[in-house]
Amino acid sequence: MKGRRPAWVVGVDIGGTNLRVGTVPIEGGAPPVAVRRRSTRAASGSDRVLDRLVTMIRESVADVGRDNVAGIGLGAPGPLDRASGVVTETPNLGWRDYPLRDLVAEACGLPVTLDNDANCFTYGEWWMGAGRGSRRLVGITLGTGIGGGIVIDGEIHHGASGAAGEVGHMSIDFRGRRCPCGARGCIEAYASGPAIAVRAVEAIADGGDSILASMVGGDLGEITAEIVCRAAAAGDPHADGVVRDTARILATAVTNLIHLLNPDAVVIGGGVANAGDRLLRPLRREVRRRVFGAHMRACRIVQSELGDSAGVIGAAGVFMRAHHGRPR
Amino acid sequence: MKGRRPAWVVGVDIGGTNLRVGTVPIEGGAPPVAVRRRSTRAASGSDRVLDRLVTMIRESVADVGRDNVAGIGLGAPGPLDRASGVVTETPNLGWRDYPLRDLVAEACGLPVTLDNDANCFTYGEWWMGAGRGSRRLVGITLGTGIGGGIVIDGEIHHGASGAAGEVGHMSIDFRGRRCPCGARGCIEAYASGPAIAVRAVEAIADGGDSILASMVGGDLGEITAEIVCRAAAAGDPHADGVVRDTARILATAVTNLIHLLNPDAVVIGGGVANAGDRLLRPLRREVRRRVFGAHMRACRIVQSELGDSAGVIGAAGVFMRAHHGRPR
Repeated sequence: MKGRRPAWVVGVDIGGTNLRVGTVPIEGGAPPVAVRRRSTRAASGSDRVLDRLVTMIRESVADVGRDNVAGIGLGAPGPLDRASGVVTETPNLGWRDYPLRDLVAEACGLPVTLDNDANCFTYGEWWMGAGRGSRRLVGITLGTGIGGGIVIDGEIHHGASGAAGEVGHMSIDFRGRRCPCGARGCIEAYASGPAIAVRAVEAIADGGDSILASMVGGDLGEITAEIVCRAAAAGDPHADGVVRDTARILATAVTNLIHLLNPDAVVIGGGVANAGDRLLRPLRREVRRRVFGAHMRACRIVQSELGDSAGVIGAAGVFMRAHHGRPR
Repeated sequence: MKGRRPAWVVGVDIGGTNLRVGTVPIEGGAPPVAVRRRSTRAASGSDRVLDRLVTMIRESVADVGRDNVAGIGLGAPGPLDRASGVVTETPNLGWRDYPLRDLVAEACGLPVTLDNDANCFTYGEWWMGAGRGSRRLVGITLGTGIGGGIVIDGEIHHGASGAAGEVGHMSIDFRGRRCPCGARGCIEAYASGPAIAVRAVEAIADGGDSILASMVGGDLGEITAEIVCRAAAAGDPHADGVVRDTARILATAVTNLIHLLNPDAVVIGGGVANAGDRLLRPLRREVRRRVFGAHMRACRIVQSELGDSAGVIGAAGVFMRAHHGRPR
C-alpha cells in the first residue's frame, strides 16, 4: 500500500437545511460514492452541527479506506475567508467568525479546503456536470437563498475580497421589493423559495379562487415554492402567474449576466430549479427576447445535471485544484 | 537606424461623434503624443470616414517617424469580430460587416489590431489611468450610449462571442422604460446622454418652473445632459432631480456589477462622467447603501483619469498586448 497515491477526496456540502458528504474519485469521470445526507439542525448549535458533520466525514473516509483519501473539500454558505478557512457569517447556520476549516482538519487529521457553496456548485457543474467544456460558466443556485458562481478558464472567479458571484442580490427593480439585505429589487426577494411562497400568498390575498389554499388545508403559511409549482402544473392561474413572473424576473437577471460576461453556459440548480422546464422554458423564452443575438447563440441555459451532488463534487474539485492541480 | 525596435504605437478611438488618433510610447509611463481629434461625420459615408481616419493616422505616424512605429491599435463601437477585424454593425456609424482592420492595414502598411471601444477605454485606464494596479477592473463609459469593459488579471474579458462587458443593457427595472434594443429597463434608456436629456424634458413637462427651458431659449430639443448638469449645479430642482435619479439608476447597476465581480475598482468615463462629483458623489453614496460591506471596502469607484485619451491609449495597449506581450 505504501507510496500509493490517494485516489479519493471527500466533498462536503453544508447547507442551511441539509449536510451532504461523499467521496469523489481524484481522476474524475465517475459519480461520487455514497453521498450521505442528514438534516443540518442549525438550531442545535455550531458544536453539534460540527460533531455530526465530522461523524459523516469519518464514515465517508471509512467507505474508501483512510489511506486512499487525499483530503477534504468543504463548501459552506458565505461570506467566508478562504485564506484563513473562517466562515465570517452565516445567518442560516448562526455561525460567526467560525474557524470551520481548521476545526474539521483537526478532528479528521486530513488537509481541508473551504470555499463558498455556490462556487462549489458551479465548479462541480463545470467539472462533471452541465457546464462541462465551458470556458466561461455562470452557476445560479435557487433555494432558500439565491447564490451564484463564476468559473472562467477553469478557475473560480473569487474577486477582490472572495465575495464574487453574488447573483442573489442583483437588483432588477431599483424601486422594487425590499430585500432583507437592505437594498431594493434583489432577485432573492422575488425568486428564492420562501419569496416565491410569499408572492403566492399575496396573489391569493388579491382575490380569486385558487387550489393553493386547499392544497395546504387552508394554512397559507404551509405554502412552499414546490407546492406553487405543483399548483401551476395543475392549471391554477394564480400559481401559474407566480411561476411566470418568477421566470421573467430570473430572465432579467440572466440577461444581465449574459450581456456582462458573455458566457458559454448558465447552469441553474437548487431546489427551486427542480420545477424544471416549467420554470426554464419561459425563462429561456424571455431571455431570448431580451438578450442580443450574438450573446444568445453563444450561450446555453441549462438545468444542473448533478442535482443534489453538485456541491459535494464541486467542494472535492476545489480541494483537488488546490492540492493536485486543475481537474481535467 | 536599422534593427532598432520601434518605440511607438498609434492608438485610434473611433466614436460616433469624434475620431481621435495619437501615438503612445511602447514602454508606457508617458502620455500619448499629440492626440488629434476630428468630427466623425458618419453621415458622409464609410469611405469618407475611413479616408479621414487614414489621413489622421499618417499624420500621427509622421509625428514620430515611420520607422519608430510598431503598428496601429483601433478601438471601434461594437459588435465586432476581433479575429477577422470586421465591424459587424455600428448603428451610429452606419457600418455593416465592414472589414475595418484590413482596410486600415492596407492603407497604412502597418500591422493593426481591432477591439471594442469600451474595452479599449477600460484597458487604457487599467494600463495608465485610474485603474492602475487593479487586478479586477470594470470600466463604464457614459456617452451617447453606455458601454463597458472588464479587465481581469491584465486581460480584457471578451467572453464567448467577444461581446462581454455590455453594461449599457443591464436592466435595473424589468418592467421599466423601453430601450431601443427591445428590452425594458436597460440603464442606457435612462442614463446615456440623450436619455438624460429626454428625462429632463419629461420632468419639465410634468409642470413647475425650471431654468432649463430658458437655458435653451425655449427649444427643449436643445437640452443636453451637460445643460442638465449645469442647471442642477445652478440649483434647478427639476434638473437636480434628474441628476439624482441618474445617480440612483447607475448606482443600482454598479452595485450589481460589484456584487457579481467583486472588483478592486470601477472606473467611470465618457462625456456624462464629466459631471464629476455632482454625479459620482450621490452614486457612491447610493452604492454604499446597497452593496455588502466586504465588497465595498475592496472597491474604489473613480472617475476616468485619462479622459478623452483613454480610448486612444487603450487601443494602443491592445495592440501592444497582441504583439509585444502584456504592458507593465
